[in-house]
Amino acid sequence: MDRPDKPQILNRLNRVEGQVRGIARMVEEDRYCIDVLTQLQAVKAALGRVESELLKGHMAHCIESAIVAGDAGEQRKKAAELIQLLERAR
Amino acid sequence: MDRPDKPQILNRLNRVEGQVRGIARMVEEDRYCIDVLTQLQAVKAALGRVESELLKGHMAHCIESAIVAGDAGEQRKKAAELIQLLERAR
Amino acid sequence: MDRPDKPQILNRLNRVEGQVRGIARMVEEDRYCIDVLTQLQAVKAALGRVESELLKGHMAHCIESAIVAGDAGEQRKKAAELIQLLERAR
Amino acid sequence: MDRPDKPQILNRLNRVEGQVRGIARMVEEDRYCIDVLTQLQAVKAALGRVESELLKGHMAHCIESAIVAGDAGEQRKKAAELIQLLERAR
Repeated sequence: MDRPDKPQILNRLNRVEGQVRGIARMVEEDRYCIDVLTQLQAVKAALGRVESELLKGHMAHCIESAIVAGDAGEQRKKAAELIQLLERAR
Repeated sequence: MDRPDKPQILNRLNRVEGQVRGIARMVEEDRYCIDVLTQLQAVKAALGRVESELLKGHMAHCIESAIVAGDAGEQRKKAAELIQLLERAR
Repeated sequence: MDRPDKPQILNRLNRVEGQVRGIARMVEEDRYCIDVLTQLQAVKAALGRVESELLKGHMAHCIESAIVAGDAGEQRKKAAELIQLLERAR
Repeated sequence: MDRPDKPQILNRLNRVEGQVRGIARMVEEDRYCIDVLTQLQAVKAALGRVESELLKGHMAHCIESAIVAGDAGEQRKKAAELIQLLERAR
């Protein structure tokens, strides 16, 4: 399945990886806790943007295929998955 | 549309309403801020449980009808609605 | 302890109470689940604004008094309370 | 400032970094979106645990020093920082 958004998502994940390494360096250097905590919140926000990209792709590819295929079982599975994500996101 | 879970949801909402009134009384009586803030977090958790009930019902009724009817347009709308809820839940 | 922000907080809580009653009416009238869920998210956001007001007041009154009084024990208690709120807010 | 919890925090961050790399591999291999999203939620939970460790250390070191030093200005700054974290955590 070719995903046009793959390079962008990989790029974001790569940056997140770098941010986490940067936070480790801050801890290594005994940087002020609040500055480290602020960076951790920034990483979580960046992960949220990756989630948004993935959800858009999921809608356009996986959900769309289940709808077009008229596969009721698959559609139920996909709806249940989204609801489970919602429960965990709270 | 008859919803078997309606009495339970109405009961939860009624209790939330009472909790909010109780918090107003705490503020009226100059109760300690942290105690009021703790009650506010409890109300938000209670609202989360109402959301869970509604999502279960939504899955069982609205989403199921769109699947059974084989209505692709309606299925897309429902999927998009769930994803929008997810975005706002973050 | 006279709190200048009390009327505003009570006003917000009063509106939240009305919103919750409105949501109960929506459920009563079998309104579309997603519309009800959207209103629930709006109530949670409104409760968040009440929390912000309370925290501002807590900082200006309770925390400030503990600082001015130079009461180390009370200061520790207040710091621990804020950290506990943070843990629960996640 | 010697932090007894530093090795543990660095260890957690190292694992998070590995998790993020693992997620990138999943995207690379076109793994199912929901599985990737589930892993992203796990990473955010792991970052939450790092935050908890840091807050404990912040309380034990930075806040405690400001209290012991009786430095009112520093105490105010620290309280304001915690409240700002709370606002962003919502």
